[in-house]
Amino acid sequence: MSATLRILPLGGLGEIGKNMTVVEYDGKIVVVDTGLRFPTPDQLGIDLVLPDFTYLRERAKDIQAIVLTHGHEDHVGALPYVLRELSDWPPVYGGPLTVAMVRSKLDEHKLKDVPLKEVRPGQEISVGPFTIEPVKMAHSIPDMFAYAITCELGTTLVTGDYKFDQTPVDGVPADVARLAELGRKGVLCLCGDSTNADRPGWSLSESSVGPRLEEAFARCEGRIVVTCFASNIHRVQQVVDAASQLGRKVALVGRSMRKNVNIGRQLGHINVPDGILVEPKQITDFPDHKLVIMSTGSQGEPLSALRRMAGADHPHVDLHAGDTVIFSATAIPGNERAVNDTVDRLFHLGANVLTPKDTPIHASGHGYAEELKLMLNLVKPEYVMPSHGDHKRIRLHAQLAEAVGVPPENVFKGENGLPLEIDGKGARFAKRERAGLIFVDGVDVGEPGDVAVRDRRMLSADGIVIVVATVSEQDGSSVADPEIIFRGVPAPEDEEELVEAMRDAVEDSLDRSAKEGVREISLLQAQLHDDLAEYIYRRLRRRPMVLPVVVEV
Amino acid sequence: MSATLRILPLGGLGEIGKNMTVVEYDGKIVVVDTGLRFPTPDQLGIDLVLPDFTYLRERAKDIQAIVLTHGHEDHVGALPYVLRELSDWPPVYGGPLTVAMVRSKLDEHKLKDVPLKEVRPGQEISVGPFTIEPVKMAHSIPDMFAYAITCELGTTLVTGDYKFDQTPVDGVPADVARLAELGRKGVLCLCGDSTNADRPGWSLSESSVGPRLEEAFARCEGRIVVTCFASNIHRVQQVVDAASQLGRKVALVGRSMRKNVNIGRQLGHINVPDGILVEPKQITDFPDHKLVIMSTGSQGEPLSALRRMAGADHPHVDLHAGDTVIFSATAIPGNERAVNDTVDRLFHLGANVLTPKDTPIHASGHGYAEELKLMLNLVKPEYVMPSHGDHKRIRLHAQLAEAVGVPPENVFKGENGLPLEIDGKGARFAKRERAGLIFVDGVDVGEPGDVAVRDRRMLSADGIVIVVATVSEQDGSSVADPEIIFRGVPAPEDEEELVEAMRDAVEDSLDRSAKEGVREISLLQAQLHDDLAEYIYRRLRRRPMVLPVVVEV
Repeated sequence: MSATLRILPLGGLGEIGKNMTVVEYDGKIVVVDTGLRFPTPDQLGIDLVLPDFTYLRERAKDIQAIVLTHGHEDHVGALPYVLRELSDWPPVYGGPLTVAMVRSKLDEHKLKDVPLKEVRPGQEISVGPFTIEPVKMAHSIPDMFAYAITCELGTTLVTGDYKFDQTPVDGVPADVARLAELGRKGVLCLCGDSTNADRPGWSLSESSVGPRLEEAFARCEGRIVVTCFASNIHRVQQVVDAASQLGRKVALVGRSMRKNVNIGRQLGHINVPDGILVEPKQITDFPDHKLVIMSTGSQGEPLSALRRMAGADHPHVDLHAGDTVIFSATAIPGNERAVNDTVDRLFHLGANVLTPKDTPIHASGHGYAEELKLMLNLVKPEYVMPSHGDHKRIRLHAQLAEAVGVPPENVFKGENGLPLEIDGKGARFAKRERAGLIFVDGVDVGEPGDVAVRDRRMLSADGIVIVVATVSEQDGSSVADPEIIFRGVPAPEDEEELVEAMRDAVEDSLDRSAKEGVREISLLQAQLHDDLAEYIYRRLRRRPMVLPVVVEV
Repeated sequence: MSATLRILPLGGLGEIGKNMTVVEYDGKIVVVDTGLRFPTPDQLGIDLVLPDFTYLRERAKDIQAIVLTHGHEDHVGALPYVLRELSDWPPVYGGPLTVAMVRSKLDEHKLKDVPLKEVRPGQEISVGPFTIEPVKMAHSIPDMFAYAITCELGTTLVTGDYKFDQTPVDGVPADVARLAELGRKGVLCLCGDSTNADRPGWSLSESSVGPRLEEAFARCEGRIVVTCFASNIHRVQQVVDAASQLGRKVALVGRSMRKNVNIGRQLGHINVPDGILVEPKQITDFPDHKLVIMSTGSQGEPLSALRRMAGADHPHVDLHAGDTVIFSATAIPGNERAVNDTVDRLFHLGANVLTPKDTPIHASGHGYAEELKLMLNLVKPEYVMPSHGDHKRIRLHAQLAEAVGVPPENVFKGENGLPLEIDGKGARFAKRERAGLIFVDGVDVGEPGDVAVRDRRMLSADGIVIVVATVSEQDGSSVADPEIIFRGVPAPEDEEELVEAMRDAVEDSLDRSAKEGVREISLLQAQLHDDLAEYIYRRLRRRPMVLPVVVEV
């Protein structure tokens, strides 16, 4: 008698980012990916957004392994936070580059001795009731693996991010043969990347970008600044190749660019000709037409090297007319404003700017609709649960599955926290588990809708008014002038008059409370809050946070 | 002897929005447009952004007229605020629709008896040393005028927003003949719309949208919700026509949609067949396939009708599978996230969504590069100062001017506050005048970088800690337990312990000050602030706003 297979997405469905999927059989768990998201502008002061992984904490002893598809933050970024909450660390598997990048991240979090294990395609991992096989895929970072997770009931294929690039820069395309073989043997459930389900056709090959970059470089007379994701190691390779072809030196600017290129070189993913790299501080030693600067900041990140250049505030790079900045990346949804801002500042400095809208100097790392259909046709899954996508992309991926012949009743449009249960009798969604988001705010990890963030939202919209009243312990009468302090509330024209009037309002409120025999501090404060909030609204037509403090002496 | 012509942009250069241009000759001023911008997410709690119009306030008595090109907020929205600051109101000119829309806006601001004057193309306005002629242009709103402003020295053509639509919905294209005539007589300076300088070719004709909408409607089986700018009256007309063709009723949802359609009908810009309009509350009386709902919210505005529908929170419209929402508009830069959010919520409700990316159901109101070149060739300006654009678009428009043969030294890439001076000897930028932005925050109009907004930014990032210490007037010793209050600061795990420790830190700080003989309240508070901020950073690794209040009793 076989048990039930449960596939529980804890992140990445109904959203872009923080990917995390739990595969469960016979009470044992494999976690695929532990990703994070970056906060939206209304998540005030928040640094990172993680999936709510309460489920993992509660089932800690059942976790047999964590397997990582690749080294991007939206797939591995939550790992330190997850590990911090687990008393026994399960083994963590990933490709060599993934492991190197994760190790560096765990070091920053002072997490030592995590059992990180390098795996390679074809190698089998046996944990609990599962056999797990990494399958080589192509993406915008090397060592990208899908995982075929097999239990008694069948094989679940979790694709991670992928494209079917026929000419990847490292020469090793996705292992179509192995996927076909898995399909022939029978795949029970496919959880596939939906990111580009809305784009018809096929994605561009990564290696098509290099020649376009070289053409663009050849037309530049001054310095060239190229910005791309620092983890896009094949892109960096192509920039280095184009620069070398045209006799330009390359300077790497930005901490993560330098770090990732180092890791990439150590693992042999990047091949840099001798003598081509120069230090950022040497930039001014070379004539403009002899330089390519590779920089972080393709998303307009506030503290990135490119943003500092755009603000004429970088210690080593001073952009001017004649320089060309090449964005070899597109804006992730939500970053458009920051990217446009950066571009316009660069124009203001006199630089030229090239983006993928002008010429094809970027290729997406995610397969388009026809590639998703190829995957479906290769692995011929019995059930499909699209992953990695907002509601729109999940729906479109589901339509693609139906278009290639998967019966509609076998296609499951999932949600975070909704487990898909499969057994001999079929598949269905089961009772919802806890899922959602948690915030990382500085050093703390907290709940969402967190009181602090709610307060910040209120403070940010209307500011705060603080009233300190000092009352006598004997009779509750006011014994000192109330202090009234505004922050974030625009000062009215006659501020002194207003403060005076508010003091009167405070005294009135206290008098009334005294007459009514109200003596308990919390009641006094509540009364004061209501009276003053009303007064402020009447005078200023605003609703700042009102914070009364009553001191008894 | 002729004087100097000054063209001073107070808004709209180096940005998109808040367009305002001052044309000045012989000490007299004409103001073209008084626009506003909507705030960016980091302008916390701000409602509107206006150009800093100090220059107009200081030169109030010299203002001969305000002329308005069309009724969009980025061209007229600041008018009530400008008029509030002028003791004598100059006449305000605009086309009939512009005047009707502005009148309704001034009524809301309780500004009565403003001398609003309707003008029509070809009619001449004589004010001070100027003759001003409105020239009919096409845009995404009727009654769009360029203004040819002529003084002794020559003619300045300020285009406002325009496209050369050969088949506008109202059948009256831009007056190319009149522009050519102006060119033949000689145009001294062209200030032209740069909004789409980055798009090659020609814009789509507005009337090409109607048939595409009708095709899209014909494929819909359930209800259809169309969202577009409420002021895009020709678009509304085309939706009404398509609905009528297919036997569907039309319901108008959202306040500004209803208001603008009313104004448009009164002025004869919209022709609605009898019996086609139904009230929002009647929506449930009709079968789904008999309805088109026209709604505000194409930009994902938080309080708009469409956003409420997407949140399953609209009193009259309850969207479900089978319904189709058609975005007949593109996201203004910066609104992408809000629009994408809205789209995804609609998908989550089960609705289908069509956007201009899927099928050409939108046409821009701004001419593309070839149209800007046509304008340049028609009016053959001696000088060119591109307007309405960020730095990138201004630069690209300048390149177009050079491409059609304007000598580079006659093309001026302007900035807000930088006056272009033209006289018999040539043209040059003169001394910078005050320009920038001011905020509207509720009922107040304030300075930018306003203390309130700075405070809100700080409060929104890290929250606030308030400390109330009560000290004796005699010797400065602490006479009551310090009160410590957090808002927007995440509560640490052991909050009580922390508050206790902070109280100790406060007492220590006060003791030290007492020992050092510090008695002045402001010094005590400064010391307390520094000590506590340091303590909090040491404990929490955060830098909230720290607000010490010392009460003497």
